[in-house]
Amino acid sequence: MTRRKIIIDTDPGQDDAFALLLALGSPDELEVVGVTAVHGNVPLARTTINAQMVIELAGRADIPVYPGCPRPMVKPGFTAEYVHGPSGLDGCELPPPSAPLGDRHGVDFIIDTVMAAAPGEISVCTLGPMTNLAVAMIKEPAIIPRLAEVVFMGGGFFEGGNTTPAAEFNIYVDPHAAHVVLASGAPVTMVPIDLTYKAVMTPEWLRRLRAVGKRTAVEAAGMAEFYQDYGNKKFGTDSYPLHDPCVIGYLLRPDLFQGRKCHVEVEIHSPVTSGMTVVDWWNVTKKPANCLVLRDLDNPPFYELMLERIARLP
Amino acid sequence: MTRRKIIIDTDPGQDDAFALLLALGSPDELEVVGVTAVHGNVPLARTTINAQMVIELAGRADIPVYPGCPRPMVKPGFTAEYVHGPSGLDGCELPPPSAPLGDRHGVDFIIDTVMAAAPGEISVCTLGPMTNLAVAMIKEPAIIPRLAEVVFMGGGFFEGGNTTPAAEFNIYVDPHAAHVVLASGAPVTMVPIDLTYKAVMTPEWLRRLRAVGKRTAVEAAGMAEFYQDYGNKKFGTDSYPLHDPCVIGYLLRPDLFQGRKCHVEVEIHSPVTSGMTVVDWWNVTKKPANCLVLRDLDNPPFYELMLERIARLP
Amino acid sequence: MTRRKIIIDTDPGQDDAFALLLALGSPDELEVVGVTAVHGNVPLARTTINAQMVIELAGRADIPVYPGCPRPMVKPGFTAEYVHGPSGLDGCELPPPSAPLGDRHGVDFIIDTVMAAAPGEISVCTLGPMTNLAVAMIKEPAIIPRLAEVVFMGGGFFEGGNTTPAAEFNIYVDPHAAHVVLASGAPVTMVPIDLTYKAVMTPEWLRRLRAVGKRTAVEAAGMAEFYQDYGNKKFGTDSYPLHDPCVIGYLLRPDLFQGRKCHVEVEIHSPVTSGMTVVDWWNVTKKPANCLVLRDLDNPPFYELMLERIARLP
Amino acid sequence: MTRRKIIIDTDPGQDDAFALLLALGSPDELEVVGVTAVHGNVPLARTTINAQMVIELAGRADIPVYPGCPRPMVKPGFTAEYVHGPSGLDGCELPPPSAPLGDRHGVDFIIDTVMAAAPGEISVCTLGPMTNLAVAMIKEPAIIPRLAEVVFMGGGFFEGGNTTPAAEFNIYVDPHAAHVVLASGAPVTMVPIDLTYKAVMTPEWLRRLRAVGKRTAVEAAGMAEFYQDYGNKKFGTDSYPLHDPCVIGYLLRPDLFQGRKCHVEVEIHSPVTSGMTVVDWWNVTKKPANCLVLRDLDNPPFYELMLERIARLP
Repeated sequence: MTRRKIIIDTDPGQDDAFALLLALGSPDELEVVGVTAVHGNVPLARTTINAQMVIELAGRADIPVYPGCPRPMVKPGFTAEYVHGPSGLDGCELPPPSAPLGDRHGVDFIIDTVMAAAPGEISVCTLGPMTNLAVAMIKEPAIIPRLAEVVFMGGGFFEGGNTTPAAEFNIYVDPHAAHVVLASGAPVTMVPIDLTYKAVMTPEWLRRLRAVGKRTAVEAAGMAEFYQDYGNKKFGTDSYPLHDPCVIGYLLRPDLFQGRKCHVEVEIHSPVTSGMTVVDWWNVTKKPANCLVLRDLDNPPFYELMLERIARLP
Repeated sequence: MTRRKIIIDTDPGQDDAFALLLALGSPDELEVVGVTAVHGNVPLARTTINAQMVIELAGRADIPVYPGCPRPMVKPGFTAEYVHGPSGLDGCELPPPSAPLGDRHGVDFIIDTVMAAAPGEISVCTLGPMTNLAVAMIKEPAIIPRLAEVVFMGGGFFEGGNTTPAAEFNIYVDPHAAHVVLASGAPVTMVPIDLTYKAVMTPEWLRRLRAVGKRTAVEAAGMAEFYQDYGNKKFGTDSYPLHDPCVIGYLLRPDLFQGRKCHVEVEIHSPVTSGMTVVDWWNVTKKPANCLVLRDLDNPPFYELMLERIARLP
Repeated sequence: MTRRKIIIDTDPGQDDAFALLLALGSPDELEVVGVTAVHGNVPLARTTINAQMVIELAGRADIPVYPGCPRPMVKPGFTAEYVHGPSGLDGCELPPPSAPLGDRHGVDFIIDTVMAAAPGEISVCTLGPMTNLAVAMIKEPAIIPRLAEVVFMGGGFFEGGNTTPAAEFNIYVDPHAAHVVLASGAPVTMVPIDLTYKAVMTPEWLRRLRAVGKRTAVEAAGMAEFYQDYGNKKFGTDSYPLHDPCVIGYLLRPDLFQGRKCHVEVEIHSPVTSGMTVVDWWNVTKKPANCLVLRDLDNPPFYELMLERIARLP
Repeated sequence: MTRRKIIIDTDPGQDDAFALLLALGSPDELEVVGVTAVHGNVPLARTTINAQMVIELAGRADIPVYPGCPRPMVKPGFTAEYVHGPSGLDGCELPPPSAPLGDRHGVDFIIDTVMAAAPGEISVCTLGPMTNLAVAMIKEPAIIPRLAEVVFMGGGFFEGGNTTPAAEFNIYVDPHAAHVVLASGAPVTMVPIDLTYKAVMTPEWLRRLRAVGKRTAVEAAGMAEFYQDYGNKKFGTDSYPLHDPCVIGYLLRPDLFQGRKCHVEVEIHSPVTSGMTVVDWWNVTKKPANCLVLRDLDNPPFYELMLERIARLP
């Protein structure tokens, strides 16, 4: 496997933090060329700082964070402090970031990086609302054919949604952005809650993570404990999935994931279904596939991988 | 269990035929006070004749068939000969009906029957697009609080749809009718494909049905064989579910079925999701439940019941 | 001009009353074969009684009133007591009706009358929400090619709406019904507020109406005075249009009216424009015309005609 | 009147050219700090060159042109060569531009200029689809409260649309962008076709323009002659309005224009009305006004002004 260059677009969020840590713990496979922050789980000012703090926790203050769009394209803003706590990273105690911010807007970092690289060199992983990538595509559509791949956490079909009956949070917040990306023609892989609900983090795994004893692992365990509380109460369970690291897991070990190439359309018209990712799994519309939809994963090796990689961090 | 009085509103269709036979084979539990026909799997002229032929096959020519609406409320008509064959009952050989048609329109039969009976005496089971019941509710809303229950086959959520990615056939054909019924305030039970896809008819069961040797059972087996062909090709399987008899199965043996009371909204606005039944399984909208959504069944005893009841028929 | 047979479908409403009086005062040209009542300006129970009272005021208790649908097809009900007063006919004093109601539902009266007459013999004039006619078309589509003409008061395009910025009251209340009628293929003439806003009733005309001195004219003048109050306050004027009698005026003197055959589509999808009648006046969609849209009238002779005809009544 | 600093966002188009010339001929009142080009009447590559050519024609090569977004936010692109000819400026003969392009993207020029100026110093005039301004607002919402005013040519209500029955071209092409701007809270003035259809350019005026004899006037006359051809054929007239210069006319002589502050909502949901600007002229929704809607102008002095100002140019 060659080393892949990725931009991580993120709205941390505890599960975003796990995705960042998994990526930063895997430098042989992934080169994180930059991180762009976006409004989402909490407002942009917080997600920017949170991304910086997690990167510094992992000892990678050399990777700049570029703040992107502070609002969705068309809809009013909507955040999820009811899941992540007021800071977005409740459960950990991290010092304020010390590194300077990136030298430009997140949208421009995406455009400039993709345009400066060879065609097919850069992949973009989005872990929150897709506003930054969509606005980049509108501002400079020439990036579209140059993208290696877009892998996004978001959407849901066979599980319905988690924010409305039909819509998952990341797509609900900015359905128009998701529509732009899915309709762009770029190679897109979707990591929906249909998959991530199967990526359950067990109490035993959390104990092992904490037992690593190093600072990153211990803080990560604290975040995970806070984060799982909302979901366990909602569903009456004692173990809960981490959504966002599945995106990085798929880049590292695609063999652990199964899916199907389908036509996916983002619903942007109805108050009842706005933000829904309508997956044509059985190709009844006869429309050409525009997305690889992941639906299953081999969960134990994925969590083993995540444990091993986070354990590498300071 | 007291004997329930039901009206069966139907668009046969082979699986509608099984529902009729299951009901007519269960006279101790169910009194079929009349059958109303509706456009759906095939046009009204065919569904009317088909309903008559199945009733006469079962030896119950005393039950009148009332032809109802020949078209959906708002959308253009749409039929499914690609599933059921040009006659709607391909696979069997039945003589033309001999009994006269009911003496009025199906919509009026529903209204008159419900208004003449005691409140809570009549249940309506719909096996096709819900046009007749919805038009009855518009023409005479006084029927709504007098209905014992509406049990309808239609919709889907966790399985998506079968006609579009998001919509099941019965609701897709007349989403406005389904919207009227779900929003009416009447007690409604939904039998979606989420449930019926689990009501699989096995090759072994089909052999046993045919082995009953009586005319009704043999013709039913012929219909089932034709009918399963479309589904088996689509999904690459060798056994296929019968959707509509689940409605009657639920009336006869509710203990075999599990579900949850939820808010269900029929999407009627977006070209992508029109006809979708949006089920708020986790009550994220906080809207009050308007529907019992069935999602699981104990399949072997259901099929045993169906075999036993059809075997009673001539 | 041959004598035309018409059904008047109405939700009186003071301006509906003028339409009825104009028709009943024109027996040489129009044979009112029946009147169907519909929910609209006020609930069905009131519009039924109001229609009866106006008919009896005109000395035509022989014309039966058939109560129709008490609710719109899909949307919740919506009435306009804020315009017409709690009774719908505020401003007059009429005794309770003495004649019995028609012997069937308004929807069935429409169906039975059209089916019993020769093709092209019956015209339907709707003065309120089009629920009755639409439900008749759904229940028995065979009436559609048998209709001579549908003339409806409703809609608006170049004037916008009067109930929302985009929607006129009659269409706003039941946009799905209007959609069914406009898409039916029947010959349809639309009398929108674009036209009726030009049918202004002047104070001088009102004085002349009252000066007729006969009971019908005096009560009509009382209704008109109450009715114009809402509009004059809204627009800061001292004279106001009577919408509904324009429909009858067009039947009597089409030479006084100008319009254009266009494609008209009723918007039923957006919360912002639901109930709008989108008129393709310049045929930019290239869709075939389905409606004659009236836009101008020669107002003085129209009001002279109305005065003369009402003056004939007792 | 103080001298106003404006950014002109444009998609020339012959009538855009008149707007540019009117502004550039009015240096005492207007300082054009930059011109941003957008996709619209023709693709971005052409509108950029066209803007440059017109500016150079006016002898103002010192004003840079910044190319902006080459596509709408959400919808696929749509252009109007059927009106403007393949070049967008058919009817004139201008040499290729010689000045270099602006040093950044049009979206960033808007953001940077507004953020660098004092609050309330910069107005933005949009003459085409509003993609650039909307994307600037999404990328950097801090510009919104710093804008002096947005004046846009686009929309229509009492005249309907010109591209669909309900939608005017500029809004039809990017309704989401218009929605973002109208919902932003910035002070917005709308110059709809309801107004511009009254800004008719007469044959006599065209003769006088050509008779000026200077190069700019002669080329402008050539453009106007080509441009009016489409409209005159469509409407069967011999004189046609210039839409876009009304925006600049309003900035120069607001006393010539009449309108009303209203709530305006851009419809983005229905296939029938997408791109419609729904004007609540009578405030029936009780929503607060977000837009000054111009509806009338004193046309002769406006055209006299335009002639005088273009005559000043080389």
